[in-house]
Amino acid sequence: MNPAAESPCYVPIRAAMDVIGGKWSYFVIVQLFQGPQRFNQLRRSLGEVSIKSLTDTLRHLEQNGIVHREVFPTVPVSVEYSLTESGWEYSGVLLRMREWGERWSAGAATPH
Amino acid sequence: MNPAAESPCYVPIRAAMDVIGGKWSYFVIVQLFQGPQRFNQLRRSLGEVSIKSLTDTLRHLEQNGIVHREVFPTVPVSVEYSLTESGWEYSGVLLRMREWGERWSAGAATPH
Repeated sequence: MNPAAESPCYVPIRAAMDVIGGKWSYFVIVQLFQGPQRFNQLRRSLGEVSIKSLTDTLRHLEQNGIVHREVFPTVPVSVEYSLTESGWEYSGVLLRMREWGERWSAGAATPH
Repeated sequence: MNPAAESPCYVPIRAAMDVIGGKWSYFVIVQLFQGPQRFNQLRRSLGEVSIKSLTDTLRHLEQNGIVHREVFPTVPVSVEYSLTESGWEYSGVLLRMREWGERWSAGAATPH
């Protein structure tokens, strides 16, 4: 058993990592920052994602309370995905990641 | 090719994810917040990590400019690992992850 992994410091970090861990998770989250989108809209903006990968990612994010799925009684039925409050709050993590990544990439570009 | 993955918004996030992505990366980073540590100190505090996993993780973090490796001319030689400035800056990302994870876990605990 890994004592470190059970400590109160790691458990929430692990939770955040598990939510964003999948290859497409944060792509989908960042896309939904632009507002609710339908499945095919997401597919077009994510380029090479397969239907299965996008379906699995959306289900994973929905089950983890990050994405809300709404079904509209159109003919045929249409489904729209949007961020929950928790999903919007994740933007703070992504923003810090992006800031860090920009500084790090700039630093990595200059010879040590 | 995934147009989203090449956009300026994702590249830095991807960089941050790649650095922390490994199973043990953020455990090591969080341990080194407590100050420089030797290999066996890290091994003890990380519990079940194998020598190979810890060696690979430290090399990955060193190559990515997150960890500094210092060799002391003792007999036998001793090696100490510490966070670089970039490593310390990563604490901002981990802190936001932890805050988000705590709120999310609390929210996940209450029935919707």
